[in-house]
Amino acid sequence: MPVNLPTLDPSQLFPVAGLELGIASAGVKTAGRKDVLVMRLAKGSRAAGVFTLNKFCAAPVRICRSHLADTGEIRALVVNTGNANAGTGLDGYERAKEICFALAERLDISPAQVLPFSTGVILEPLPAAKIIDALDAAIGDLKPANWFEAAHAIMTTDVAPKAASKKIVLDGKTVTLTGISKGAGMIHPNMATMLGYLATDAAVSQAVLQELVSWSADRSFNSITVDGDTSTNDSFILMATGQAGNTEVADTHSADFITLRDAVLEISQTLAKAIIRDGEGATKFITINVEGGIDRAECKAVGYAIGRSPLVKTAFFASDPNLGRILCAIGYSQVENLDVDKLEVWLDDVLVAKDGGRYAGYKEEDGQRVLKQSEISITVKLNRGAESATIWTCDFSYDYVKINADYRS
Amino acid sequence: MPVNLPTLDPSQLFPVAGLELGIASAGVKTAGRKDVLVMRLAKGSRAAGVFTLNKFCAAPVRICRSHLADTGEIRALVVNTGNANAGTGLDGYERAKEICFALAERLDISPAQVLPFSTGVILEPLPAAKIIDALDAAIGDLKPANWFEAAHAIMTTDVAPKAASKKIVLDGKTVTLTGISKGAGMIHPNMATMLGYLATDAAVSQAVLQELVSWSADRSFNSITVDGDTSTNDSFILMATGQAGNTEVADTHSADFITLRDAVLEISQTLAKAIIRDGEGATKFITINVEGGIDRAECKAVGYAIGRSPLVKTAFFASDPNLGRILCAIGYSQVENLDVDKLEVWLDDVLVAKDGGRYAGYKEEDGQRVLKQSEISITVKLNRGAESATIWTCDFSYDYVKINADYRS
Repeated sequence: MPVNLPTLDPSQLFPVAGLELGIASAGVKTAGRKDVLVMRLAKGSRAAGVFTLNKFCAAPVRICRSHLADTGEIRALVVNTGNANAGTGLDGYERAKEICFALAERLDISPAQVLPFSTGVILEPLPAAKIIDALDAAIGDLKPANWFEAAHAIMTTDVAPKAASKKIVLDGKTVTLTGISKGAGMIHPNMATMLGYLATDAAVSQAVLQELVSWSADRSFNSITVDGDTSTNDSFILMATGQAGNTEVADTHSADFITLRDAVLEISQTLAKAIIRDGEGATKFITINVEGGIDRAECKAVGYAIGRSPLVKTAFFASDPNLGRILCAIGYSQVENLDVDKLEVWLDDVLVAKDGGRYAGYKEEDGQRVLKQSEISITVKLNRGAESATIWTCDFSYDYVKINADYRS
Repeated sequence: MPVNLPTLDPSQLFPVAGLELGIASAGVKTAGRKDVLVMRLAKGSRAAGVFTLNKFCAAPVRICRSHLADTGEIRALVVNTGNANAGTGLDGYERAKEICFALAERLDISPAQVLPFSTGVILEPLPAAKIIDALDAAIGDLKPANWFEAAHAIMTTDVAPKAASKKIVLDGKTVTLTGISKGAGMIHPNMATMLGYLATDAAVSQAVLQELVSWSADRSFNSITVDGDTSTNDSFILMATGQAGNTEVADTHSADFITLRDAVLEISQTLAKAIIRDGEGATKFITINVEGGIDRAECKAVGYAIGRSPLVKTAFFASDPNLGRILCAIGYSQVENLDVDKLEVWLDDVLVAKDGGRYAGYKEEDGQRVLKQSEISITVKLNRGAESATIWTCDFSYDYVKINADYRS
């Protein structure tokens, strides 16, 4: 079961003016399952995205990149579960294009104004005709209050739906932000994907939107790991409909930008952390703070070395303070000229290591106490600079192997 | 149980003239356990080594590097199990030095002629006094025919001892090579280590010996992975006593060099593969061949991405040909400008993927047949160059989690 993931309250997922969501069943993999989501954006909306760096990226990812580069006005998104349309070559690309054409025709927009997304098993042909047949039903279901249903529709083997919503004030106007995500790890069983969608009715310039999506992804979705496997389909999309009536946020030095950025970050982090809380087989939620680095990149490198180490993660599963494993991971984290004698390792408020070895005042029972918690923080102080980064991960249990060794469901 | 690892035959482990081995019990962690090994080299011997790149490297690793740089004549090695003497700071360094001094005194050599090694739990102080107390017994036990016993003495949680031996002819003289290794993965439970020792009575120049140890380590111990965790103590030492009577091998273009190199490589690979066959929880032995790369580094990067992916390894454990996971790992392997449409993926003799997707003639039952074997090869043809590399790994089972989640034994 997910680690301390609160149950979603549909009434707390605020509609975003200018964005409607519609759900349908296409039977991509399982008959009757709600597996198609269409999002329609009002005229004048803007969108920006970040995508997987996997070179075997899925056909829809390639199309999204191209459509976002082509036009300033994305008007619709279409998501299917049950099949990732990855490792499908030219044929997969053409099938994803067909879906864009079919949706564009029905919504009276151009195919380049559609962003397609797929999630599920890879190396299997996408049943595009089934998805196209379901588009009318999804369009008939379009409404702004469908976020809760949408969060369910994009789940594959997620145990719980993931969504977050917030209202802020910009320029005297109330602005809403609502987002959903899916994923039970950086990688789902069978190579399905992490997907995140965050919409606001704020007016935001395209340049600022792009800055916001990259900056917040770096500090949320790009700061989590379950198993170190980077999916073929990861996508995070930020949309702004501009219907809140605020003066367009176009200056990254303005107070409104900071307010908006903080809200985007808060929701992105909530959605990203929800993926870890629902991580495959997870029993513990682990926050790794790396401080005092020369740059953010080396802090992330140290955090990820710890966060993806099977030895650290199995020790945490067992509540065993076998903390040498953390030092070992720091040691192979590929940070140049790291002086291990200068760093400190903390477990919550317990100092574990300093001066290159175990801290003289460290007591095993203190480590044991922290390890038994379901929420644990590790803090590494590199003591060589002023930068920091935080990585979120979960432990590694029998159930991770069980979930991933099960035959493709 | 280890995967297809033959039982050692003590009569097939040939003594190496000029090298004696002695074993004793120091009670480092468990009373009565044979946990100390001393190796004594005759005058005129040479040694060369490669060590972990982990920055939290153990105190003995730092001393080995320094002693190998100081002197051309290493005369003794001392190994203890039960404690890695890593993450122990200056105090750990001094304790390892004390052991070198004590052994040097007893063997009438200088402390800089001793190489110390430790393997076991990290972040715990090394009981140096216990080890020093056991040195006389180990020295009393010194004899050339002790390789089988030595292979057992360096085990920690290895299920089986690991050794290999071979005779070749150089310059008309019979030359013997014998080696031992330990490790049940790149990392043992509790951060113990991979250790490898290979000795020959051939006469070999120091430069050639150094070349041989690096070249063969790259193609053996540095081509295996169980869990991607690089230990704090990994060491591989090549020793040459020069007692076989051959003309010193000093030219890397000579026929003798090639004969010796091939024999060193064969034994190194046997010892390295034995570690994978005895990998934590392993049920399958997997060989990953990556061909057609621009350089060896990118071939290794692709091989390691596949070989350390928990998703690939759990699918192999389940005998599930969920082969999209292999494509996904290739895709995130950080190879620059990789054109995924050009590559081919084979499972033994079954072509699985080409042209960026599943091969049209691939049948699930063919993949299933191969996956059910205990020995499986994956071949990736990058089709962009003439270089290649091979990585060996094992699958990822419930027992991996069990072994590593157990309290430190």
